[in-house]
Amino acid sequence: MAAQKRQDVVTFIFFAAITGVGGGTLRDLLIGAPVFWVQDAGYAIVCSVVAILVYLTRGRGVHRQTLLWLDAVRLCVYASAGVAKALPMGVDPMICVVMGALTATFGGIIRGLLAGVPSILLSHELYITPALVSASVFVTLRRPGADWTWASGIAVAFGFVVRAGAIRWTWHMPAFEPPAGRDPS
Amino acid sequence: MAAQKRQDVVTFIFFAAITGVGGGTLRDLLIGAPVFWVQDAGYAIVCSVVAILVYLTRGRGVHRQTLLWLDAVRLCVYASAGVAKALPMGVDPMICVVMGALTATFGGIIRGLLAGVPSILLSHELYITPALVSASVFVTLRRPGADWTWASGIAVAFGFVVRAGAIRWTWHMPAFEPPAGRDPS
Amino acid sequence: MAAQKRQDVVTFIFFAAITGVGGGTLRDLLIGAPVFWVQDAGYAIVCSVVAILVYLTRGRGVHRQTLLWLDAVRLCVYASAGVAKALPMGVDPMICVVMGALTATFGGIIRGLLAGVPSILLSHELYITPALVSASVFVTLRRPGADWTWASGIAVAFGFVVRAGAIRWTWHMPAFEPPAGRDPS
Repeated sequence: MAAQKRQDVVTFIFFAAITGVGGGTLRDLLIGAPVFWVQDAGYAIVCSVVAILVYLTRGRGVHRQTLLWLDAVRLCVYASAGVAKALPMGVDPMICVVMGALTATFGGIIRGLLAGVPSILLSHELYITPALVSASVFVTLRRPGADWTWASGIAVAFGFVVRAGAIRWTWHMPAFEPPAGRDPS
Repeated sequence: MAAQKRQDVVTFIFFAAITGVGGGTLRDLLIGAPVFWVQDAGYAIVCSVVAILVYLTRGRGVHRQTLLWLDAVRLCVYASAGVAKALPMGVDPMICVVMGALTATFGGIIRGLLAGVPSILLSHELYITPALVSASVFVTLRRPGADWTWASGIAVAFGFVVRAGAIRWTWHMPAFEPPAGRDPS
Repeated sequence: MAAQKRQDVVTFIFFAAITGVGGGTLRDLLIGAPVFWVQDAGYAIVCSVVAILVYLTRGRGVHRQTLLWLDAVRLCVYASAGVAKALPMGVDPMICVVMGALTATFGGIIRGLLAGVPSILLSHELYITPALVSASVFVTLRRPGADWTWASGIAVAFGFVVRAGAIRWTWHMPAFEPPAGRDPS
């Protein structure tokens, strides 16, 4: 996404890093865990290398549509990963769902703020909801001691279906309507 | 406030939660305390239930003016609560005042950023100042060992008077003026 | 910078404080150190006094150009200071460079967001890069056990040259170009 505006490589990496690790950073701060990428320089290296590669190819041959679908997968994987990190720390399951959703969505929200584009929060697109679905399914499946791999696979699948519906058929929830009788302008 | 733009219920809860717990979250992170709503799922439940109720009533019969005054009370209560949490942790009284003001104002500031509305910081309205007044009064009264209940009541009252003046009679402080002799447009 | 828009003294101090301590605050949170200005009220006092003095003089006789150069020095000093704090905590040298750059740039980025001005990230100006240069030089020099004072002096100088080039001769890196054959509007 950082490739849409004209940017130099440093800003490009900066935006890629925020989208990639922003949500997990907030989650770690909130649950009091050491921030994952500060502990392990590997994340910074991988993130920089990927960003540089994408920058050098300059989006050639990559369609905006492909990015949208890749981001949908990322969204649901992050939501499950967020839960998977918070649950063993003794965080309440309901709060774990919140953490999953934050992990998945916060990076993109901050990126939008810094890039000065209208927030996805204000569009009617479902974005937080698929993350909540993935996180909720993961919390539910994981509690009775179900297999970790299966749980995350199913959780990602459920969230992805919701996100796919939002992208493909513009699924959305009923919006807050102004009181009847007034012009909804 | 989140009801003013057309939003679905998830975004609505999201904005309500940010306004409600954003300031306290920052305070807890800064003073190194465990984040209050991560420790106790009760906050998330109450916040969600209230937001859903408000969403379902869809602001019917609630005037913008009422919300403004409720927010004024919230502002001063949060400022005192922010101090009350920081003081026993051995934080310097002056920093406690800063924490009180942050607790009271940060949630609303972030909400404004994410909602893409012009920040209240840039209006000439007194908003940080009433929070500072409440927090300062609370720190002063509490130090000599005064009663907790009285101290917070008086602190909220003082801050509320300043905020009420700002809302009702547009009290404001002298603004930074461009050097004399230049057109202040 | 906070003096450019018409603001009262409280908002003015608020923006000055964010620019001054925002980056260091994020760094401390990320590396798990106690936030420096919460531990030592001296920072808040100095910051407030300086902000009030600047406010009272109302920018009289201070040129925007002077501020720009002072900020260039601050940028490089903060970058080195960020590294100097993270290195002894056992943080990986590469992550220390990231911390240095965050310490130097984050306060200004947040200030821009809150003030509603277009982010410096989206200009083509070199801003993160000089901070990265200072931080990298400092990490490199400091590792073999070189003198602390020399290391920071040289690091600041290197970063300052890059930033000076950006300000004076509009140095910039090649920007992300849209695929050839398309109108780059």
